Amino acid sequence: MAEIETAFEDEAFGITDRLISDVMQAVVARDGEAVSALLDPLHPADVAHLLEQIDARDRRHLLVVWPGGLEGEVLSELSESLREEVIEQLAPSELAEAVRDLESDDVVDLVEYLDDAQQEAVLGALNATDRLVVEQALSYPEESAGRHMQSELVRAPEHWTVGEAIDYLRSDVVLPDQFYHIILVDPRLKATGYVTLGRILSHPRATPLRDLAEDTFRTFHVTQDVEEVAQAINHYHMITAPVVDDDDRVVGVITIDDAMMFLEEEAEEDLLRLAGVGEGSLSDRVIETTRQRFPWLAVNLITAIMASFVISLFEETIAGLVALAVLMPIVASMGGNAGTQSLTVAVRALATRDLTTANVWRVIKKEALVGLINGLIFAVVMGAVGVVWFGSPMLGVVIAVAMVINLVVAGFAGTVIPVVLEKIGVDPALASGAFVTTVTDIVGFFAFLGLAAAWLL
Amino acid sequence: MAEIETAFEDEAFGITDRLISDVMQAVVARDGEAVSALLDPLHPADVAHLLEQIDARDRRHLLVVWPGGLEGEVLSELSESLREEVIEQLAPSELAEAVRDLESDDVVDLVEYLDDAQQEAVLGALNATDRLVVEQALSYPEESAGRHMQSELVRAPEHWTVGEAIDYLRSDVVLPDQFYHIILVDPRLKATGYVTLGRILSHPRATPLRDLAEDTFRTFHVTQDVEEVAQAINHYHMITAPVVDDDDRVVGVITIDDAMMFLEEEAEEDLLRLAGVGEGSLSDRVIETTRQRFPWLAVNLITAIMASFVISLFEETIAGLVALAVLMPIVASMGGNAGTQSLTVAVRALATRDLTTANVWRVIKKEALVGLINGLIFAVVMGAVGVVWFGSPMLGVVIAVAMVINLVVAGFAGTVIPVVLEKIGVDPALASGAFVTTVTDIVGFFAFLGLAAAWLL
Repeated sequence: MAEIETAFEDEAFGITDRLISDVMQAVVARDGEAVSALLDPLHPADVAHLLEQIDARDRRHLLVVWPGGLEGEVLSELSESLREEVIEQLAPSELAEAVRDLESDDVVDLVEYLDDAQQEAVLGALNATDRLVVEQALSYPEESAGRHMQSELVRAPEHWTVGEAIDYLRSDVVLPDQFYHIILVDPRLKATGYVTLGRILSHPRATPLRDLAEDTFRTFHVTQDVEEVAQAINHYHMITAPVVDDDDRVVGVITIDDAMMFLEEEAEEDLLRLAGVGEGSLSDRVIETTRQRFPWLAVNLITAIMASFVISLFEETIAGLVALAVLMPIVASMGGNAGTQSLTVAVRALATRDLTTANVWRVIKKEALVGLINGLIFAVVMGAVGVVWFGSPMLGVVIAVAMVINLVVAGFAGTVIPVVLEKIGVDPALASGAFVTTVTDIVGFFAFLGLAAAWLL
Repeated sequence: MAEIETAFEDEAFGITDRLISDVMQAVVARDGEAVSALLDPLHPADVAHLLEQIDARDRRHLLVVWPGGLEGEVLSELSESLREEVIEQLAPSELAEAVRDLESDDVVDLVEYLDDAQQEAVLGALNATDRLVVEQALSYPEESAGRHMQSELVRAPEHWTVGEAIDYLRSDVVLPDQFYHIILVDPRLKATGYVTLGRILSHPRATPLRDLAEDTFRTFHVTQDVEEVAQAINHYHMITAPVVDDDDRVVGVITIDDAMMFLEEEAEEDLLRLAGVGEGSLSDRVIETTRQRFPWLAVNLITAIMASFVISLFEETIAGLVALAVLMPIVASMGGNAGTQSLTVAVRALATRDLTTANVWRVIKKEALVGLINGLIFAVVMGAVGVVWFGSPMLGVVIAVAMVINLVVAGFAGTVIPVVLEKIGVDPALASGAFVTTVTDIVGFFAFLGLAAAWLL
């Protein structure tokens, strides 16, 4: 009988700080039985989570003290940066046992980024049929539906009845662990529709399956981007997305739980790219993290030097009125922030397909207008600050006008730049930030110092 | 028979620019039949998408020309900012017809943020039973599992067999549109486990349901945060999450497709909050968008003024060497970017529960160390720039040392600030940016100008 677990109240699902410290105590005492007693009842996702929370040395000790404890599912749940490390530590026999029970798509996820020797070790542990399925999937492009589909699925001839389907399912056929639809196929194995299990269960045996088929049926090609499939699953509230080959034969399915994972990864990727962090994960080592952060900082340095060059054009102006040096970062900073606001909304809307050629001009005009209105408000505020702080009404006017210019430019550039990048095939999440900040820095310093040179000196 | 649709290749799922312009032409020609012919075959999610792409005036005309066309599901798919506008335009009878076929959780989603008059209009269109269910859900706190659960579900006594379950499902009982599990209950209606439909279909009629129950069974309380439930669904790969009341009786379920929506919303919220955009959506009006952007820009203005104040402390230093004004934004900008990198990783890791008390110190040390290494590299680069550009080795040393200090501080503050905000109950996505930038601006200007004052003049 299944055991009831109450809702988790801890910070990290089934894992508490207490549990971690108990496990580590048992590891230090080299008490394998105690470790098993603590870890065996956990869901594989929780074991993976625990392994991610402790440091590399503790992980190594834990795996030594807990021999044979690691199930294949824990490996699939582990973050990519830890998989290689953990797999390296497993004896070939342990690895073989761990991967044997995984579904084909989980094996593919597990091995696709391993080095050749490790990949071969995992594939070698599979039986010939499973290995063939995995190698077939690996032959499709990275990020394609074919690469990530689950090949275990349930098909039925479209002329079958409910009774025939039930008899088939009750026979000794091998079924996927989880399935929610039966896919109908014609005599040439072409997919023609699908039926939910709920409808099959609630209709008499004589009912033809085709009468129970869902109204809409969408299939996806093996080479289609798996993220697009995941977006369609989300958009159309599908549970299973059938994947077909060139002859329209169903060769696999993308399930909603995998789609959820792909969308999570996509959202995380966009977030991290916008912040210039690339593919980073918390469990990466120092040197890896340093390397991931470096390129964006380097790009930012070039940007910052370009901005400094603009300032250097006005050295004499600044020498004549040092107050300009005090106030100039304000204009650039406000522009940078307004630009980031616009570009984040644009990048997100491009990802969710809400920003399209149909509405792009309306959005650009709107963003520029929002920049104008906020610019006018802050112009008044900063004008007053200029007067009060430095007692110069004209300095107030200069900073106010520069502010308006920069906030309008920020709204415009913050939308146009991501849209153009997307059009020319560059990921807008990755590159927009640097371009937009360059524009707002340069425009900000140029407008403020240029106006000051013209009107104040 | 279901119709096959090929994989979408357009930018926005089923919606192409061509379709939008065809629809708008038919609207201009006031040709209701042509509009119906174009829109009726579309999935409700696609109709909603189309309504979001066109502007408010076109939307108004479209709804006038396409009377009675709008299904309830289109309303649930619409972004929140458009719902009020569209509902206002529907005649009471149209609204009644639209909402009558929705599942209870969709009605709740639809009405929860409507004003009282509109809410009453929708509730009034429901029959007494449905209305009771919706009002019950609305009595649970916002964002709770009880508020968002689907109350339609399938329960069975735990002592039933497969045959009894099938006979029950085939009787004239009302079933949910979609269901994937049967939830087992004891005589007091307490939930004790659940069985997937796939296992029921693949076992003989005599098999007891309890023998087919899933190994793990988790329930969630009606008052639990629905985002937590969604995270658990994702973490544990569940399809259905049973929601129970104080007596452990199942009163509803959160399904994986809704969980997917909640996680998407959460990820979007974090992304937009990090960029200081609040709850913005592309279809908000100018004035709303201006209002959403304003607070963050105002906070940034205060931050920028504080940074300017630090600069003003060194007016004499700058007057003595204008090159300082040229170079100082570089140090602040690099610190700001490094800080944003660290804080984005930290905010994301807090959201996914990867950053916990168990590893927080390790992460803080790592981030500071990453800052130190990158700081040293950029210090060498900037030192060289200082020497080459301004011919002053000492200026090079000043900017190099300031760079190292600011990047270490950025790594430290970028992690500590979000963690502390989370601990004291403030959303780290919302507030971290302002704090971290303040720290890196002030430290950057202070270190650079302070060292310059001490060593150069």
